[in-house]
Amino acid sequence: MSAENTFIASLRALAKAPEARGLEDDAAVINLGNQTLVITHDTIVEGVHVRDTDDPADIAWKLIAVNLSDLAAKGARPLGVLVSHMLGEDDDRFVLGLSEVLAHYDVSLLGGDTVGGAGRRVWGCTAIGSAAHCPVPDRRGARPGDAIFVTGVLGKAMLGFKGVRGFEPAYLRPKPLLDEGIALAPHVSAMMDVSDGLLLDAARMARASGTVFDLQRACIPVAAQSRFEDCIRWGDDYQLLFTAPSNAVFPTAATRIGTVSENGTAPLLLDGSPPDASRPLGYQH
Amino acid sequence: MSAENTFIASLRALAKAPEARGLEDDAAVINLGNQTLVITHDTIVEGVHVRDTDDPADIAWKLIAVNLSDLAAKGARPLGVLVSHMLGEDDDRFVLGLSEVLAHYDVSLLGGDTVGGAGRRVWGCTAIGSAAHCPVPDRRGARPGDAIFVTGVLGKAMLGFKGVRGFEPAYLRPKPLLDEGIALAPHVSAMMDVSDGLLLDAARMARASGTVFDLQRACIPVAAQSRFEDCIRWGDDYQLLFTAPSNAVFPTAATRIGTVSENGTAPLLLDGSPPDASRPLGYQH
Repeated sequence: MSAENTFIASLRALAKAPEARGLEDDAAVINLGNQTLVITHDTIVEGVHVRDTDDPADIAWKLIAVNLSDLAAKGARPLGVLVSHMLGEDDDRFVLGLSEVLAHYDVSLLGGDTVGGAGRRVWGCTAIGSAAHCPVPDRRGARPGDAIFVTGVLGKAMLGFKGVRGFEPAYLRPKPLLDEGIALAPHVSAMMDVSDGLLLDAARMARASGTVFDLQRACIPVAAQSRFEDCIRWGDDYQLLFTAPSNAVFPTAATRIGTVSENGTAPLLLDGSPPDASRPLGYQH
Repeated sequence: MSAENTFIASLRALAKAPEARGLEDDAAVINLGNQTLVITHDTIVEGVHVRDTDDPADIAWKLIAVNLSDLAAKGARPLGVLVSHMLGEDDDRFVLGLSEVLAHYDVSLLGGDTVGGAGRRVWGCTAIGSAAHCPVPDRRGARPGDAIFVTGVLGKAMLGFKGVRGFEPAYLRPKPLLDEGIALAPHVSAMMDVSDGLLLDAARMARASGTVFDLQRACIPVAAQSRFEDCIRWGDDYQLLFTAPSNAVFPTAATRIGTVSENGTAPLLLDGSPPDASRPLGYQH
């Protein structure tokens, strides 16, 4: 087990609430009786999650967007965000990007914290939302026989990161699928956002559900067939991965990419075989 | 204006919600109709808020405690916390301290995030609570004629930091006054926790309320009279500072330390005169 996994396992043991799924996995769910809240926190580290050369305006956008994406995967409407910012150069650019993303998604800045610091900068965002549908979807609900779906097209962010013209915004300014998540929530058996790569996140969902995800390569919608293997392993697209009964009808566009089957030896199959073990399934950070 | 203040002013301009007081000041308040939530986020930086040599168990305690103290100042009952942790050495000590503080205050770990990193470590905590009393107290409500009170004794954390025997726990393991905050909330006109020093925080409350706080030195309870000036300028005690009508009766012990008066030239007076301008009022970070 990696140091991170050991640490997270320790945290999990600490988490008293059965709904404490927010440890690296899903956002946390708080049931208030007449209302269900979803709360999530993500930290972004310079040089790890964003490049040292990235415009702080784009960093601010991404910081908020990745947290809103966690709400989207829960079918939650944002109530607001709190931002933690380490002061540094180009803080005005950070404020600009923050204003743009908040305005775009009509999200309130509720509060936060600023700290001084040196070296690599770190930013944090907490997003809180109200679940539009209960039970709130999570990654544990996939059942054998369910179909597996993904929204949109995978690999645009990868192409943007690689500098392919026209795709930069997909990497720098991801678009959380809030409306889609809310629309899908009543129809899905499991849902999560694809942040670390389709294969890795599909394997995680399969494992959390105690099932096998059998994906069909030919069905997976990618931005560049010539870079198919990268497209299905690269995160940052923030599309929604979900499962549902195979006869389900959805209010939002999605592509069927496979079928859930009974637990087996590997959580993930590609055209019936486990993926190439010599290559990471996605972005492990 | 400092870079930090300029940045915060920009954030404030962004904050659409009138209750967006959570930007460095009070925790944010979210009104859900039948329930009012309080949410706060604090970031701790190694070498800034904690010493490089501090035991990660104590860092974990402090991280949670300072956020719970923000809830205490709002009279809010904790619903849970999310923790952001940068992986490093002695993560098992961090987990131990976290388990201790969560058990001590019977608080749920709802979720969080772990990140890799190098250099100075950074930790974040988001605490969410349910307000026990509405309107939720903040720092803006002090009125001329109100009396000014503080709980407990100031300066213990300072003595602990300076290595005075027996006071180390006051610095390393601050105790948020959750029960006291809930008990006081219905009785106060304004309330905040003293995190950055009595004089600085009193000046902030006076300014936020558009009043003058006239404190009487002889009334201020300190841990060491010989270090009186340090005791009233040093934070980390997390006592509650509040104002209330002078005839109010409280369910919890507190000391009257002064009187609120009409707006004047300086927000703060000590025995009728502005404090020595050559010395900082408290801890500015």
